[in-house]
Amino acid sequence: MEVIVPFAAQRPKTRLRDVLAPEERRSFAEAMLADVLIALRGTDFDPHVLATEPLDLEVGTTVDDRRLTTAVNAALAAAEPSPEAPVGVVMADLGLATPDALSLLDPDGKADLLLTPGRGGGTNALVTKHPGFRVDYHGASYLDHLQSARALGATVREVDSYRLSTDIDERQDLVELLLHSDGAARDWLVDAGFDLDIDEGRLGVVREG
Amino acid sequence: MEVIVPFAAQRPKTRLRDVLAPEERRSFAEAMLADVLIALRGTDFDPHVLATEPLDLEVGTTVDDRRLTTAVNAALAAAEPSPEAPVGVVMADLGLATPDALSLLDPDGKADLLLTPGRGGGTNALVTKHPGFRVDYHGASYLDHLQSARALGATVREVDSYRLSTDIDERQDLVELLLHSDGAARDWLVDAGFDLDIDEGRLGVVREG
Repeated sequence: MEVIVPFAAQRPKTRLRDVLAPEERRSFAEAMLADVLIALRGTDFDPHVLATEPLDLEVGTTVDDRRLTTAVNAALAAAEPSPEAPVGVVMADLGLATPDALSLLDPDGKADLLLTPGRGGGTNALVTKHPGFRVDYHGASYLDHLQSARALGATVREVDSYRLSTDIDERQDLVELLLHSDGAARDWLVDAGFDLDIDEGRLGVVREG
Repeated sequence: MEVIVPFAAQRPKTRLRDVLAPEERRSFAEAMLADVLIALRGTDFDPHVLATEPLDLEVGTTVDDRRLTTAVNAALAAAEPSPEAPVGVVMADLGLATPDALSLLDPDGKADLLLTPGRGGGTNALVTKHPGFRVDYHGASYLDHLQSARALGATVREVDSYRLSTDIDERQDLVELLLHSDGAARDWLVDAGFDLDIDEGRLGVVREG
């Protein structure tokens, strides 16, 4: 199955601006992309990066500098998903992704659409077999995608994975990466001076230096 | 498999104090407990509530007014888990739990211990077959539990579920309940005036007065 991995190379991870400088955000985002691609290499899927500018990667890359929703929909229209040729879309900031977790996106089932919720109403990963399905990543995308599926008469299966539901967008998300990853993005954070902040309730992060 | 569901009846959900009054927090916590017990009823497991005071429930309840870690460890010691008689512990605030998600805690495997991470370093659900394993819910419990397992020579399998990893502790967690549940706790929130707050980035919640 072809899996599209969109990557916003310009100004990525703006919601980490309170803890990372612009060049750091870019470098950190590239480390997460590398982790996602390594995890995908451990699956049966065939990843393809959709980036806003050319990147130096070992996997095939299409450059499209339009906004995320527009670029992904153009790629879906070009791929013409069908039950015989399903297409996946996996976000590049799933820093906890593993081959096992990604393999939950198994298209061998009855559902026309697999949706993996992201925290806060997002859609972190999906698989479509329906040629007419289009994404809308603005706002409450999970609800919008459910509604689009209903409008198309497409059946939906929710993919239940903590690892795939954890997109790394905000300071608090860095805790999950420090705790549950051993990839390049975690190493990047440790090298940048981040550590767990053990207090009451949930853990936080601190940055030294 | 026996599954212990600990419930703190006194002063539950203190980290929701900015959005819920004390009596509301108790009532909301009881709605989540009811949802967890209904979801467990859809599994092969045998739930047993461990509460800090007597409750009016249809499932067996043990009253132990000590702190969470102490009470759960006393229950584990009494249950004497073994490979033939594994014992589960599932938090009462897993408002997104479904029978399918809970069934991932399937003890039929080689691992001595199944651990389900909670956001922020917690342990939202576990299964133990090892008579010597004890919990420590204070601080970074997931790391502590991994360390205890290592010390015992017990093998660990991580259970990867967004639904089980989402404990409802803080204001932002209410978003997940509003989006992905149709249980009593979600109804409670809607009746109390909560609604999704659709803005940029992740969704939030608002409460109307």
